Amino acid sequence: MSRIITLLSDFGSQDGYVGAMKGVILGINPRAMLIDISHEIETHDIMAGAFVLASACDHFPQGTIHIAVVDPGVGSKRRAIIVETSKGYFVGPDNGIFTLMCGREKVTRIVTIQNPKFRVSAVSQTFHGRDIFAPAGAYLSLGVPAELFGPPVDAVEMISLPSPRVTGRTMEGQVIHIDRFGNLITNISARLFGCFVGTGTQEIWAENHRVSGPYSSYEEGRGRGVFAIFGSSDLLEISTTGENAHKMLGLARGAVVRVLKPTKGARKK
Amino acid sequence: MSRIITLLSDFGSQDGYVGAMKGVILGINPRAMLIDISHEIETHDIMAGAFVLASACDHFPQGTIHIAVVDPGVGSKRRAIIVETSKGYFVGPDNGIFTLMCGREKVTRIVTIQNPKFRVSAVSQTFHGRDIFAPAGAYLSLGVPAELFGPPVDAVEMISLPSPRVTGRTMEGQVIHIDRFGNLITNISARLFGCFVGTGTQEIWAENHRVSGPYSSYEEGRGRGVFAIFGSSDLLEISTTGENAHKMLGLARGAVVRVLKPTKGARKK
Amino acid sequence: MSRIITLLSDFGSQDGYVGAMKGVILGINPRAMLIDISHEIETHDIMAGAFVLASACDHFPQGTIHIAVVDPGVGSKRRAIIVETSKGYFVGPDNGIFTLMCGREKVTRIVTIQNPKFRVSAVSQTFHGRDIFAPAGAYLSLGVPAELFGPPVDAVEMISLPSPRVTGRTMEGQVIHIDRFGNLITNISARLFGCFVGTGTQEIWAENHRVSGPYSSYEEGRGRGVFAIFGSSDLLEISTTGENAHKMLGLARGAVVRVLKPTKGARKK
Repeated sequence: MSRIITLLSDFGSQDGYVGAMKGVILGINPRAMLIDISHEIETHDIMAGAFVLASACDHFPQGTIHIAVVDPGVGSKRRAIIVETSKGYFVGPDNGIFTLMCGREKVTRIVTIQNPKFRVSAVSQTFHGRDIFAPAGAYLSLGVPAELFGPPVDAVEMISLPSPRVTGRTMEGQVIHIDRFGNLITNISARLFGCFVGTGTQEIWAENHRVSGPYSSYEEGRGRGVFAIFGSSDLLEISTTGENAHKMLGLARGAVVRVLKPTKGARKK
Repeated sequence: MSRIITLLSDFGSQDGYVGAMKGVILGINPRAMLIDISHEIETHDIMAGAFVLASACDHFPQGTIHIAVVDPGVGSKRRAIIVETSKGYFVGPDNGIFTLMCGREKVTRIVTIQNPKFRVSAVSQTFHGRDIFAPAGAYLSLGVPAELFGPPVDAVEMISLPSPRVTGRTMEGQVIHIDRFGNLITNISARLFGCFVGTGTQEIWAENHRVSGPYSSYEEGRGRGVFAIFGSSDLLEISTTGENAHKMLGLARGAVVRVLKPTKGARKK
Repeated sequence: MSRIITLLSDFGSQDGYVGAMKGVILGINPRAMLIDISHEIETHDIMAGAFVLASACDHFPQGTIHIAVVDPGVGSKRRAIIVETSKGYFVGPDNGIFTLMCGREKVTRIVTIQNPKFRVSAVSQTFHGRDIFAPAGAYLSLGVPAELFGPPVDAVEMISLPSPRVTGRTMEGQVIHIDRFGNLITNISARLFGCFVGTGTQEIWAENHRVSGPYSSYEEGRGRGVFAIFGSSDLLEISTTGENAHKMLGLARGAVVRVLKPTKGARKK
C-alpha cells in the first residue's frame, strides 16, 4: 500500500497553509511520505495547476496519492472529488484541475467526498485543503477504498483548453505554460507535429516571430536565437539557450504558435 | 515517540541554510521526519513567524517537535529555549516567536538549552539554527527529556501584540497578518466578534473603507467587492473573491479594523 | 545503507520539474528520504549552485547522496558523473558544480554515468535531472556501487574561482555569494585571515567602503553600520545588523574586499 502523498496548491510558502495540511495528514497517517510538487501555482490559476500536476504525476510510482488544491470556488457548490486511475488517486476540487491528467491516464472511478468519517470534525468554508482534501488523501493512504468516501460521479469538470488546429498547410497551436526558464510550452505534441510535417520541411512562427528548429537539445540551438525544441513533456517549446525566450519575445500564455508547410516553389511568409 | 520535526525560519530557500539544519538533524536522528512549515518569513519578522507557527502547529499530531528560528538577536544574550506543551515541543530563540502559540497551548515546562552534549561541538555565533536548535530538536526526537537540556525558566519572552479593544459601541482590532492571497487577517476572533455583536447588526470598517459581511465563504462574497469573512483560523479577515484585498485597499499590517454597532435611529459614520 | 538523497537545482518551485525527479526516485527506491537543499539557484548559475551545495553538504551524515543539477549544457557533450567522496556521493553534470565541494572533501572515485540499466528507458535531451541524475541517485541509494554506472574519470571539471591574493601588506579577496539577508560572503576564510593579520591591526574595505570589525556576532556589530564578521561557513562576510548590507553598499558578486595591515606611523588610505 502506497504511503506516498504529493501536494500541489497555490498556497505559496510564506504562510502556514501547507504546513497545516501536512499536520492534518500526519495526524491521520504518521507514516505518510509527503512530497511537494508545487505550492507556487499562481493564485487561482486552475489551468497552471492542471499543467504542472499532469507534467509531474506521470513519474510517480503506482498507487501514489496526489492532492491538488487550486480552489477559487471553495465554499461554493463545486464538488470535492477523488479520481481513481490505473496509476493512482487524485484528490481535489472538481473544477477542472484534473483536466490534463485525465487526458492521459485511464480513469477507473470518480467519487464525491461526503462521508463525514473521513474529514476533520469542523469543516471550514474557506480551507477545504486542510479540512477535506488532506484528510481524504490521508485516509486513502491508510487503504480506505475510494468508494467509501461518497457516491460515484460520471465525469469530472473539464476546463476548455485550446487544441491545435490544422487548416490547409498550417497547424495552429497555443502556448499553454511558461516555465521558470522562460520556455514557452505549447499544446503541440511531438507526435502531432510528426504526423503533420511528415518528411517535409516546415516553418515555425511564434506569433510574428520566425523561429528556427525544432532542435533536439538546447545545445544544438546555442547561438541561434529563439528556436523550437521538443521539451521534457514531448511538447513543442519556444526556447533559447542561456537566455529567456519569454522575456525576449514578450509573449504570454495563449500566444499562437504556427507550423507552416511551404508549398513548392513558393515560400510562405 | 514522535519522529516528526517541523521547521520554520526566515532563511529563504535560495541559500543552503535550511539544508544545513536538516543535515545536522539527520546526522543525529536519521529517522526524523522533516516537515517545512515556512522558510519565507520576512527576514527578522518575529511577529510573522509567531503568526505562521501558531496557525500551523495546532494541526500536527501529539508529540510533534517544532523548530522555529527567526533570530535577529543570534549571538546576543537572548536565551535558547525549549517550550514543552501538552501537545508537543517548541525549540527556538526566546525572543517572542512563541508568543501566539503559548496563548493557545498549555505550557508544561520551559528550559534553556545549555547542555553541551546536545549541540554541535563548535557553536558559531551567527547560526544557532544549525548549531543549537537543530541538534536540540533532533535529540528531543530521540526521546531525550527536555529537562536534560538545561535549567528551567519561568516564562518566555512575549512580543506585545495589539489586542482588540471595545469602547462604547465600537470594537477596534488590527490587521496582524497578510497572506499570499492578500487576505488581511485581524486579531478579532469569531468568538469575540459574536460576544460583541450578539444578535444585532453591525458595520465593519477597514480603516476608512466600509466593507460588507461577514460572509461564511468567499463564494458568498463573490461580486460584493471587499468584504469581511471568518477565515481558516477563525479570525476576522478582510478579503475579496478572485482579487487581492491587500492591493485593492493598500493597507498594511497594523491597519485598524473597526466593528460598529449602530445606535437605533442613527447610522454611525 | 543511506537512504538520504538531497536535491539541489535551478528548477524553481512553480513548475513540476522537481516533482518529476522525486517521482522517478521513489519509483526506484520508495524508501528514499528526499531532502531539498535549494531549487531557487539563479537559472544556469553554476557558481551559486556550487557554493550552496558546498555550504550544506558538509552537515549531512556519512553516505548521503547529493543530486545537484544546474545544467545549462544539458544535451551537449558535457559528462554526467558520480563523485564518490569519503563522506558520500555527488551526482550531476560535470560542469564545475562540484568545484567547491571537491575542495573540501576527499574524492575517492569519479565515474561517468553511462550504464543504460540505471537510467529511465527514454532519455530526453532536455531534462537529465529527471532521466539520468534522479535514477542514478536512486540506484546508489539502493546500494548499487558507483563503479557499475560507467567508466572511471580522472578529474572533474572545475570552474575557475577567484582566490584571495596577498600583495605586500594587502590581502585582496572577492564576494562569492550574497545570501537572502544581504550578507556579502567572501572567499577569505577565518584561517587565511588569521595567518595574514596575526596579532596586528587591520583595516577592511569592501570596494571603497571602510567597514569595521571583524566582530564575532551580529549583536556585537549592532549600531556600527556595515561591518565584517566571520559567518557560519567561517568565511569573512560583509554584513550589518537588522538591515541589508548588499542593498546598502550596492555591491554585487565579484566585488573586491581588501584587508590592509597599516604600516607603523602611517595609516594607509
